[in-house]
Amino acid sequence: MKSFIDQLVGKIEEKDSHICVGLDPHPDMLPLFLLEKYVDQYEDRRKATALAILEFNKNIIDHIAEFTPAVKPQAAFYELLGINGLKTLFKTIEYAQKKGLMVILDAKRNDIGSTAAGYARAYLGMEDSKGFKAGKVMAEDDSSGREIYFQNEVEVDCLTINPYLGYDGIEPFLRRENKGAFALVKTSNDSGGDIQDLVLEDGTKVYSAVAGLVSKWGQEVIGDCGYSNLGAVIGATYPRELEVLREEMPTTYFLIPGFGFQGGEPEDIICGFNPDGRGAIVNSSRGINFAYQREPWKNRFTEQEYAEAAGAAAENMKQEINELRKNML
Amino acid sequence: MKSFIDQLVGKIEEKDSHICVGLDPHPDMLPLFLLEKYVDQYEDRRKATALAILEFNKNIIDHIAEFTPAVKPQAAFYELLGINGLKTLFKTIEYAQKKGLMVILDAKRNDIGSTAAGYARAYLGMEDSKGFKAGKVMAEDDSSGREIYFQNEVEVDCLTINPYLGYDGIEPFLRRENKGAFALVKTSNDSGGDIQDLVLEDGTKVYSAVAGLVSKWGQEVIGDCGYSNLGAVIGATYPRELEVLREEMPTTYFLIPGFGFQGGEPEDIICGFNPDGRGAIVNSSRGINFAYQREPWKNRFTEQEYAEAAGAAAENMKQEINELRKNML
Repeated sequence: MKSFIDQLVGKIEEKDSHICVGLDPHPDMLPLFLLEKYVDQYEDRRKATALAILEFNKNIIDHIAEFTPAVKPQAAFYELLGINGLKTLFKTIEYAQKKGLMVILDAKRNDIGSTAAGYARAYLGMEDSKGFKAGKVMAEDDSSGREIYFQNEVEVDCLTINPYLGYDGIEPFLRRENKGAFALVKTSNDSGGDIQDLVLEDGTKVYSAVAGLVSKWGQEVIGDCGYSNLGAVIGATYPRELEVLREEMPTTYFLIPGFGFQGGEPEDIICGFNPDGRGAIVNSSRGINFAYQREPWKNRFTEQEYAEAAGAAAENMKQEINELRKNML
Repeated sequence: MKSFIDQLVGKIEEKDSHICVGLDPHPDMLPLFLLEKYVDQYEDRRKATALAILEFNKNIIDHIAEFTPAVKPQAAFYELLGINGLKTLFKTIEYAQKKGLMVILDAKRNDIGSTAAGYARAYLGMEDSKGFKAGKVMAEDDSSGREIYFQNEVEVDCLTINPYLGYDGIEPFLRRENKGAFALVKTSNDSGGDIQDLVLEDGTKVYSAVAGLVSKWGQEVIGDCGYSNLGAVIGATYPRELEVLREEMPTTYFLIPGFGFQGGEPEDIICGFNPDGRGAIVNSSRGINFAYQREPWKNRFTEQEYAEAAGAAAENMKQEINELRKNML
């Protein structure tokens, strides 16, 4: 079985693209004509909104698939719509997989070990290397041999996770060779430093110690490509830290959010790559999803052509990053 | 509008009970006869399992409602079952609310500010003090005046959250006076110390700095009872830390997990209470849900009477903690 990280690196090389497209359907940024189309059809406005988002996502995926190895749906924007939202999330995941894209679910899940194992089973599949059976379980006192199924409708390739609970909250996500996880190390938001930048007794900061732990934990699951199935989330908005962490975590793949809309510049993220030009994928969500709302697409495309704007924005981003990578080599 | 913490403290006093019952339906610990009943009725085994869990939860709630002010469903065990699981979670929440219980959703959500706001809207309701409209939104370029609804099916009273991303990932959860949050500070698991016990330059540990931040952030939302709508999760398995944090966070309510099944003893958790006998609720999940599998109920009850065992276990726990509290006063 091909490891997660080998699949991801393979897909990156196949597409010659080091980007990831976030699927974050902020409901107030969706094209209004699309929302209205479904609201006219369905009494239930929650359902209408969820179906509008599904059409939006599919259309975006059709136009970006050529330019990206992976998509990253942000769970919050689907949970916002309850059961209809979850249906849209699952159908979006299936559609992206059908189009040959890898799916990183941005859910930042975490808990104590036994509960973390629940999240891992929910999103990365039931079967794991600890002998848990695929898709079925027998009650402890089962004498009848009856199999009880409990399984989610979809599986993704990878989940984002939070490291605050330490190793036993991380390990369950590493139990499937063909699945991976990205652990938060240095996040892209303004107040990320409140805890992550606290100074430790040796003069280093908390995020640096977390980086060391993530790197160490990841050694268990190194793929043929030399990188680990356990990656790290490092925000594009902290380029100096990105550069230092790149040196300290040579076998850890980076997922770099915060590009574009959040203020990360192309030249900022380039230090997230290793000297071989690999080691990172750079995510943009709003900057691609809602490219139709901003220059240069704002005047070139009508609202209906939002997906073409997203495709053009993804192609631009791919080329921009490849250009910078080439200059680095 | 009564603040979340005043509602919780009111409910605790009304029931004279400082416990919280976790609703963590580990599928492999459910009574087999119950699973079989639904598997016989439904072709779709996921649906059968989810419906068995709903009956299990309702039955447990009926028997514990007298003895507890609040229940705490653990999201992972519902997400495990996909769409059917989410339906069971929502119906469980509605049933608990109908029985007069407060609901703390243990989802440990967190993200950067704009996404954290999404989670807060998903679980604590759409309307917040930042002027977000209840249950509807207009697209930015809306000229038609059409309202687009997007809203989850249920609201809970309180969510558990993770503080690793700092204040902007916390603040969205504090925007509704009648809703609250418990932030992770010192977790109950073995490896909780990997990050939480790192020593800072001033000789204190990370969890202690996080405690200080949570306490400070909570000052914005202090209720009439003197406690904050932002509480802290402190594991029962670390009694020494619990004692120190109790002194350092006088206005912060504690949610203390890890009691019972995870090894926390009654005498361990008593130092989580303030000298006035308030300031904490102690959670037990498996120890109550699955009391029917262990002494003294294992021999006294047949399998069918699992809910009576849970009720008896909840009553025992309530009394045990009240006894210790009385001795402390």
